[in-house]
Amino acid sequence: MNLTHIEHIGIAVKNLEESIPYYEKVLGLKCYSVEEVKDQKVKTAFFKVGQTKIELLESTDPEGPIGKFLEKKGEGVHHIAFAVNGLEEALSETEAKGIQLIDKTPRKGAEGLSIAFLHPKSTFGVLTELCEDKNV
Amino acid sequence: MNLTHIEHIGIAVKNLEESIPYYEKVLGLKCYSVEEVKDQKVKTAFFKVGQTKIELLESTDPEGPIGKFLEKKGEGVHHIAFAVNGLEEALSETEAKGIQLIDKTPRKGAEGLSIAFLHPKSTFGVLTELCEDKNV
Repeated sequence: MNLTHIEHIGIAVKNLEESIPYYEKVLGLKCYSVEEVKDQKVKTAFFKVGQTKIELLESTDPEGPIGKFLEKKGEGVHHIAFAVNGLEEALSETEAKGIQLIDKTPRKGAEGLSIAFLHPKSTFGVLTELCEDKNV
Repeated sequence: MNLTHIEHIGIAVKNLEESIPYYEKVLGLKCYSVEEVKDQKVKTAFFKVGQTKIELLESTDPEGPIGKFLEKKGEGVHHIAFAVNGLEEALSETEAKGIQLIDKTPRKGAEGLSIAFLHPKSTFGVLTELCEDKNV
């Protein structure tokens, strides 16, 4: 698999309006986009630091994935996303090595990326996203 | 605060020997160092992807910080470390803005970095490390 960098870190927060000022005023990062991803039942806020984005995730529905995560674990890191060259091939390889995939084929994520998740049961507890920007 | 990139992501695992092959053989990263940090009661394994390191943390003592984390939360992301220029100044600024510091002054971390942690109660659930490489 050809991972190039950490594309983003997804962080579950209760409330974007309360947490954005921490990232901006304390850490000095700039929120460059707020986007709702309706099928994931989240509102997201993006920041960039070096090669990597911070994606804050606020739930818009307690039954959505972030709603359930917050209920169970509270605020904190939700997933890590690696940028990969050749997402489809990476997924086949990963499955062939016995890793459980959440998405067997890529789907559309925030910012127009092609994304797929690996199951944390197979990845030593880290919900792991592989993503590829097909627009570059 | 002048953050330049994500220096590393710390991930708590039960067993380095079992988890290193996932990072090497599935994700294709290379473990370039295994180091024991005695005062933190951990053994660490390092990988690099782009600008960022993955630091796997295995507890060597159930009463140490990673031992307690694993007991309470299980395997998963333990902390995020941002590289900063001017660590002492960043800590004073951060404290002045009402953020709770775990380390009021920098201490020595793995790989000879100067490091300090911010308390997750002040950072929306993310145990956050600031670090600076004074050797460069």
